[in-house]
Amino acid sequence: MVLVCLLAYYGREGTFILPSLNRKRVSAVAIRGKSLISPDDFTVEELQQVVTTANEMMDTGIDSYGDLCKGKILATLFYEPSTRTRLSFETAMLRMGGSVLGFGDANTSSVSKGESIADTARVISYYADVAVMRHPKEGAPKLAAQYATIPFINGGDGGHQHPTQTLTDLVTIARYKGDLAQQVVAFCGDLKFGRTVHSLIRTLARMQVKKFVLISPEELTLPTHLYREVQAKGVPMEVTTCLEEVIPEVDVLYMTRIQRERFFNEADYQRLKDTYILDARKMEGAKRDMIVMHPLPRVNEIAYEIDDDPRAIYFKQSECGVYARMALMALQLGVM
Amino acid sequence: MVLVCLLAYYGREGTFILPSLNRKRVSAVAIRGKSLISPDDFTVEELQQVVTTANEMMDTGIDSYGDLCKGKILATLFYEPSTRTRLSFETAMLRMGGSVLGFGDANTSSVSKGESIADTARVISYYADVAVMRHPKEGAPKLAAQYATIPFINGGDGGHQHPTQTLTDLVTIARYKGDLAQQVVAFCGDLKFGRTVHSLIRTLARMQVKKFVLISPEELTLPTHLYREVQAKGVPMEVTTCLEEVIPEVDVLYMTRIQRERFFNEADYQRLKDTYILDARKMEGAKRDMIVMHPLPRVNEIAYEIDDDPRAIYFKQSECGVYARMALMALQLGVM
Amino acid sequence: MVLVCLLAYYGREGTFILPSLNRKRVSAVAIRGKSLISPDDFTVEELQQVVTTANEMMDTGIDSYGDLCKGKILATLFYEPSTRTRLSFETAMLRMGGSVLGFGDANTSSVSKGESIADTARVISYYADVAVMRHPKEGAPKLAAQYATIPFINGGDGGHQHPTQTLTDLVTIARYKGDLAQQVVAFCGDLKFGRTVHSLIRTLARMQVKKFVLISPEELTLPTHLYREVQAKGVPMEVTTCLEEVIPEVDVLYMTRIQRERFFNEADYQRLKDTYILDARKMEGAKRDMIVMHPLPRVNEIAYEIDDDPRAIYFKQSECGVYARMALMALQLGVM
Repeated sequence: MVLVCLLAYYGREGTFILPSLNRKRVSAVAIRGKSLISPDDFTVEELQQVVTTANEMMDTGIDSYGDLCKGKILATLFYEPSTRTRLSFETAMLRMGGSVLGFGDANTSSVSKGESIADTARVISYYADVAVMRHPKEGAPKLAAQYATIPFINGGDGGHQHPTQTLTDLVTIARYKGDLAQQVVAFCGDLKFGRTVHSLIRTLARMQVKKFVLISPEELTLPTHLYREVQAKGVPMEVTTCLEEVIPEVDVLYMTRIQRERFFNEADYQRLKDTYILDARKMEGAKRDMIVMHPLPRVNEIAYEIDDDPRAIYFKQSECGVYARMALMALQLGVM
Repeated sequence: MVLVCLLAYYGREGTFILPSLNRKRVSAVAIRGKSLISPDDFTVEELQQVVTTANEMMDTGIDSYGDLCKGKILATLFYEPSTRTRLSFETAMLRMGGSVLGFGDANTSSVSKGESIADTARVISYYADVAVMRHPKEGAPKLAAQYATIPFINGGDGGHQHPTQTLTDLVTIARYKGDLAQQVVAFCGDLKFGRTVHSLIRTLARMQVKKFVLISPEELTLPTHLYREVQAKGVPMEVTTCLEEVIPEVDVLYMTRIQRERFFNEADYQRLKDTYILDARKMEGAKRDMIVMHPLPRVNEIAYEIDDDPRAIYFKQSECGVYARMALMALQLGVM
Repeated sequence: MVLVCLLAYYGREGTFILPSLNRKRVSAVAIRGKSLISPDDFTVEELQQVVTTANEMMDTGIDSYGDLCKGKILATLFYEPSTRTRLSFETAMLRMGGSVLGFGDANTSSVSKGESIADTARVISYYADVAVMRHPKEGAPKLAAQYATIPFINGGDGGHQHPTQTLTDLVTIARYKGDLAQQVVAFCGDLKFGRTVHSLIRTLARMQVKKFVLISPEELTLPTHLYREVQAKGVPMEVTTCLEEVIPEVDVLYMTRIQRERFFNEADYQRLKDTYILDARKMEGAKRDMIVMHPLPRVNEIAYEIDDDPRAIYFKQSECGVYARMALMALQLGVM
């Protein structure tokens, strides 16, 4: 472990040092056996422990962990399909030498026929060592966690929570930018709807990021209660409708999709949509070491022309997501 | 192995001694390579061997078997979805270090497009070492077993057979109650339809259980041919419409769901349904060491209030199901 | 490796010697990391290397390769279901000790919701070490391979290509007949449509098979451009409408299904269909060591009565398909 820490501190090309994240371990007991339904279930220290562990794993290389979860089973209970999330969890467990069972769609599942979530959770506890549940109904994974005897992870419940996306984003920022206290983090697009943005903003506020820049059309600004929550944490916010104006000061630019149906009328959509598409010309105004993030899948909100820009790290974000889930499950299972 | 037997005989908390099951091994050759389509395919000795092996595995702990099936592949061929059965098989194989492939729904399967079961069985024999098939058509798994060169297991064929549910039930009774010759086993609910009940009653009669108590509305009594079959085996039966009256003498209470559509009219359903719902008040009349079983999923035939009663072992029954399937496949593959 | 070669040369019952295939290894570097979208992507030497490696694996026995791909992950991306192809790939990877993730049907997949193939390929590159993609749209796997950083395999794209079926067929002919230069290969049935036949004919022409016999109704003859391509390679062809006439000279008889809807009218279909059904009577006219192949699933174009004829090797062809895919992936991953 000493060796791992040294490697991390001395860095390598592409390895960022995380001065603000204390790399000394919080007692793993805190996460062992614990379910993760909302990012709020974890203290800031526990979130940092996942981030630090994920970064250590990336430093050491995936091959060092090939037997870490030998004999462990992950259950993937997807009551609605979400291939990207499911495959990310599966590769995370397989890379650690564990196995996977489950279903990718409730239509393939007799579980959907009348059985209560509570009963399913109790039975699955005999089949697996850790489970991820995605469900169209808000609160379903929380209910499951209450009845299960193994840790449950919320893989997305309706428009509510998706905590491993937040962990993925935290690992990505830590890896490619480092100390949160130095980062101006901008969110661009639809800030009104979308659990991804809300969850990350709330968590970054808890972790004392330097500043937020909130870029959206007026129809799609951050909900007031979230705005107040960030204010209460003392994190400064800048609100604007224009990406180009503010991009020069941004360290982390988090893009989101604006869905056509969010607009009151087609004319507004047509007028506004280009303002929130990131292209090469807008990137010219950005810092040389800014990073562009996106939860994927993207549709047209990021032009293909910038995919090869080294600042475009939204595909590497998927890689960070695998390590975030490896770290989370390894800690929940008590093998790290 | 000596150690295993001693552990079992001296018992632990929660471990039941099985005096009537001879723990000396029947030659494993009998089950090796053999398909299981109906419980009748196995002799009483072979059924006991599966039960004994499953109980030994539970005594020793699941971690001792992590490499038992290394390199072996289970094919799960589910022409209709049955998530619980499929996942139970999958965890059983994964816990023994093997792998799993297959499909959970024939819609996901081009196998459904015109190919004969016989051809599929022959091809799958090159892909896997053991296979479980669930099929809406009665007889499909039997046909597959005839053409396959690997052991096939019936995972349920229409309303016909579901032999690993029967094995699960036998392992559960052996584990939590012990000697069958001492057990008064009651079945409550719909005894007319439902392969689970029929299959278990026939098998327990073969294995010389002490007595049956059959509790159902008059519309849903046990079919005459089954009644005669049990009589021929010399096992006494008590038939009643009232659960509360007979519960004091019962050792094993097997609950089943009464489906509304089984009744001729809604009035009868409304009048009768509560009689067959197990609740805390009815449990007051039962023995202190009676066990309550249910094949799951339950709907409302067992009140949630008794889930924490130590006699309610229907979730632990799922655990026994995993061990029953581990034992079965290990014996079929000749690794135990 | 010396031991392997000796075993192969001295043969065993059922092992055929391949004098025309040089068993010395072509440098594996050629295939390592390379995608396979069309058989034309591989040189004749590379195709031979896959065939030779597959045959070596069959000689040595599958158990010798149980750790070859330990820690490797195969992604199965099936945008339309094809259970046989998917399971063949899965067993190939599992037999080599690797793992599998993916989806069997795009309906189970949010990947289908708007994301570009290019983006999916980039993300999957972080989840797996090799991927097989089946897609209803011609060209999709090719596009994926261009953006992926791991080798992609085309598992069938529309009516276009299905290169691992061709590899399967090459391995089968090599195993059961040996030297291609000695083989008269007949194709019977629908030669107009059907990528399987077209792909194999083109590849066998490149590999200088002795002669083709093309048997089909006039409505379903080989397309002119393919006919010319074979002519250009200097391989003689005999064209006929009558299977019985030519069967005595055939070494390899490749049967295909004639779909009713391919005929202009029902009368023609009824008149012709029996001519192209292989039965015991027609087999009487064939050589004692001819082999009958079929890509499966068959419907009625081969009578069940000849399944036990030792010349009917269409089920063993499925076994060869597993080894063909093992060899391909092992070479692409650089572990052989």
